[in-house]
Amino acid sequence: MWFFALLSIDSSKLEQYIVNHSCDIEQWFRSQWQNHQAPFYASVDLRNAGFKLAPVDTNLFPGGFNNLCDTFTPLSIQAASVAIEKVCPDAKKILIIPENHTRNTFYLNNLYSLYNILSKAGLEVRFGSINDDIKESMTIEIDNNKSITLEPISKRDHGIIIQNDDGTIFRPCAILLNNDLSISIPTKLKDIDQHIIPPIEAAWVTRRKSNHFKFYNEVANEFAQFTKIDPWLINPYFEKISDLDFHERKGEAELSEKVNLLLKKIQNKYDQYQIKHEPYIVIKADAGTYGMGIMIAKNPNDVLSLNRKKRNKMSVVKEGSKVSEVILQEGIHTEESIEGAVTEPVIYMIDHFVVGGFYRVHTSKAKDENLNAPGMHFIPQPFETSCLMPDQGRPCDDEANRFYAYGVIARLALIAAARELEVES
Amino acid sequence: MWFFALLSIDSSKLEQYIVNHSCDIEQWFRSQWQNHQAPFYASVDLRNAGFKLAPVDTNLFPGGFNNLCDTFTPLSIQAASVAIEKVCPDAKKILIIPENHTRNTFYLNNLYSLYNILSKAGLEVRFGSINDDIKESMTIEIDNNKSITLEPISKRDHGIIIQNDDGTIFRPCAILLNNDLSISIPTKLKDIDQHIIPPIEAAWVTRRKSNHFKFYNEVANEFAQFTKIDPWLINPYFEKISDLDFHERKGEAELSEKVNLLLKKIQNKYDQYQIKHEPYIVIKADAGTYGMGIMIAKNPNDVLSLNRKKRNKMSVVKEGSKVSEVILQEGIHTEESIEGAVTEPVIYMIDHFVVGGFYRVHTSKAKDENLNAPGMHFIPQPFETSCLMPDQGRPCDDEANRFYAYGVIARLALIAAARELEVES
Repeated sequence: MWFFALLSIDSSKLEQYIVNHSCDIEQWFRSQWQNHQAPFYASVDLRNAGFKLAPVDTNLFPGGFNNLCDTFTPLSIQAASVAIEKVCPDAKKILIIPENHTRNTFYLNNLYSLYNILSKAGLEVRFGSINDDIKESMTIEIDNNKSITLEPISKRDHGIIIQNDDGTIFRPCAILLNNDLSISIPTKLKDIDQHIIPPIEAAWVTRRKSNHFKFYNEVANEFAQFTKIDPWLINPYFEKISDLDFHERKGEAELSEKVNLLLKKIQNKYDQYQIKHEPYIVIKADAGTYGMGIMIAKNPNDVLSLNRKKRNKMSVVKEGSKVSEVILQEGIHTEESIEGAVTEPVIYMIDHFVVGGFYRVHTSKAKDENLNAPGMHFIPQPFETSCLMPDQGRPCDDEANRFYAYGVIARLALIAAARELEVES
Repeated sequence: MWFFALLSIDSSKLEQYIVNHSCDIEQWFRSQWQNHQAPFYASVDLRNAGFKLAPVDTNLFPGGFNNLCDTFTPLSIQAASVAIEKVCPDAKKILIIPENHTRNTFYLNNLYSLYNILSKAGLEVRFGSINDDIKESMTIEIDNNKSITLEPISKRDHGIIIQNDDGTIFRPCAILLNNDLSISIPTKLKDIDQHIIPPIEAAWVTRRKSNHFKFYNEVANEFAQFTKIDPWLINPYFEKISDLDFHERKGEAELSEKVNLLLKKIQNKYDQYQIKHEPYIVIKADAGTYGMGIMIAKNPNDVLSLNRKKRNKMSVVKEGSKVSEVILQEGIHTEESIEGAVTEPVIYMIDHFVVGGFYRVHTSKAKDENLNAPGMHFIPQPFETSCLMPDQGRPCDDEANRFYAYGVIARLALIAAARELEVES
């Protein structure tokens, strides 16, 4: 049994195991994709503790396509063409609905990369804003002769359209959300006959991290049963708490108690595998993104002694959305670093294909801190090798093999997302 | 209308037209692939005369995967995983049946590349020989620590198997032919319950070039109607002749007459487009490959005055197969050269994806000669840019745009092959 071998911790054993079983694993994935439709696109944040490799967040509105290595853009184009064939083979025109923070150059570059991928996959791509303040088309310069044109959208005959200057209209066959809709579903997007990708249920207004990880639990258990590994090695423990109010200190005791229980549960596993690290828990808003509303707890008291500033920080996420539900997730110590800086791999997928990844590199954080923190200016370090090249002949710490293992774990989270969306839509 | 513009010949107009219409073209392809299943893999030899860009040969047993740029191997892996999902999603083990000329290092490298692609797509891959002389497993060293192990196959319970040394058997779920079966279908491959890829009807023992180009005629006409171009610009004229016997000089007069008519037909088109080149015709065995049984005719008399050597050359193709049917194909002057050497692009596809290409570069041939000649030692020059990157913002002679256009024409030939196999299987 594999996990006995792990009792003596070897930081690359899990990766090596995955690489050595790539044939079986790929066949297993094929059977999964026979029964589930992958989301159009997704990114998965991973954490690699050596003894443990697991997803910590699955984003269905990925915003970092610009961080992928340009060399592998063809992989994204090819994958996008498969995705389009499945979702709407007749599509010729697509409208991307971006986030509203259009002053962020990094994000604009993401939009440009997405535009590039979809255009080359054979679509006419335009950007439509759901921000009502945008009354007329605006072109935003990025750099290197790149620009994005953002256009106001309107609704006609159960469809989103863009009114062209010459009086004609642009009516997309499909609408690709790159906006996670944290607050509400805009009326404009309701009652329309165009394909919405991903389905509107993927928006954070309805989606919950704890629901995703409930499905991930299932997937991780099935994969673990199939590969005969301990599911904990690829799955962070989690708990959910509702009806919290950080401002009013409502639910604090329950939170502290659950932190206590979860820390003990993790410590038991650490004891089993003789891991010397100190367990910690990441507390995050159950609906939300952008690393807001996140804190670390290493002790049940850590959540009792919150000062006003911290309580405020935990109370709201993007666009002022109020936090009343949180997920408590087992923290995973990252053992990866680049030039002394703590790093976290982020894997990008289109349809069920891993198209690339990058390291989120942070120079000032410790290895048990959250790397997707507010205002964080991480340095993306693109993977210069694809995630599709497992090779049992190469050493276990070979980059291609490591990236392959990342792609496997990220795809497990992708299956969870697929099941999550099936139920919801 | 596009072809009026072409009356003043501009060598990059056709490519430019294709790049400018990439959205429509991709949508058109998507609709085609809704109705047709692409072959598992294929390569297409193209000829680019500037005013004309067309396929001259479509190979369903491609033998030059090693000539593709390594950078884009992930594209092949991704495409292969799609192909496997379609043909046999449950497949875990695959057997490749290679050609028998296993002393050819180039070909062995092709097998190695194919092995690499399919293994990384998640299959257990082995090579089984249909050469009865191979009685036991033999490992052939190639270079750089690469080797291929060729194993004898046998039949058991309607299936091809490899007998392992330890008494167990390897029973593949699918059999991938990389042998074009020029002479006959080996008994071993008959009456088996495993998937044979491509279908056995793709073998040259039954397949005919003229049949492929009959389907290509259809596809080129449909594409031309859709894009409003003159189909001749992407389609070489051809004629078929049966019941020939070069040895006995049987059918020589009919051959000469057809050469005469075809040359006139080409000359008419040359007149229409004010092309100053001298028309020529390539005469090839209708069933066969490897550039054997091929000659050039610029004049009806060229086929009447054949000396014994030429008649012998035209009489047999691979493995001594006798030629009684030929295809007369309009010759296309290649206008492409690398450092003064005449070149011909070869495009590789897996499923319906263009995964790469290379130039067949020949230093001693004229531009109206066949570059796939017997004993020819061409220098492959891999495309260092993918064929998936059309960009209307870049100049028309941009490499990525040119390769994209090649990918489009190659895929037209692929649709023809798909239709051809549908009818036959």
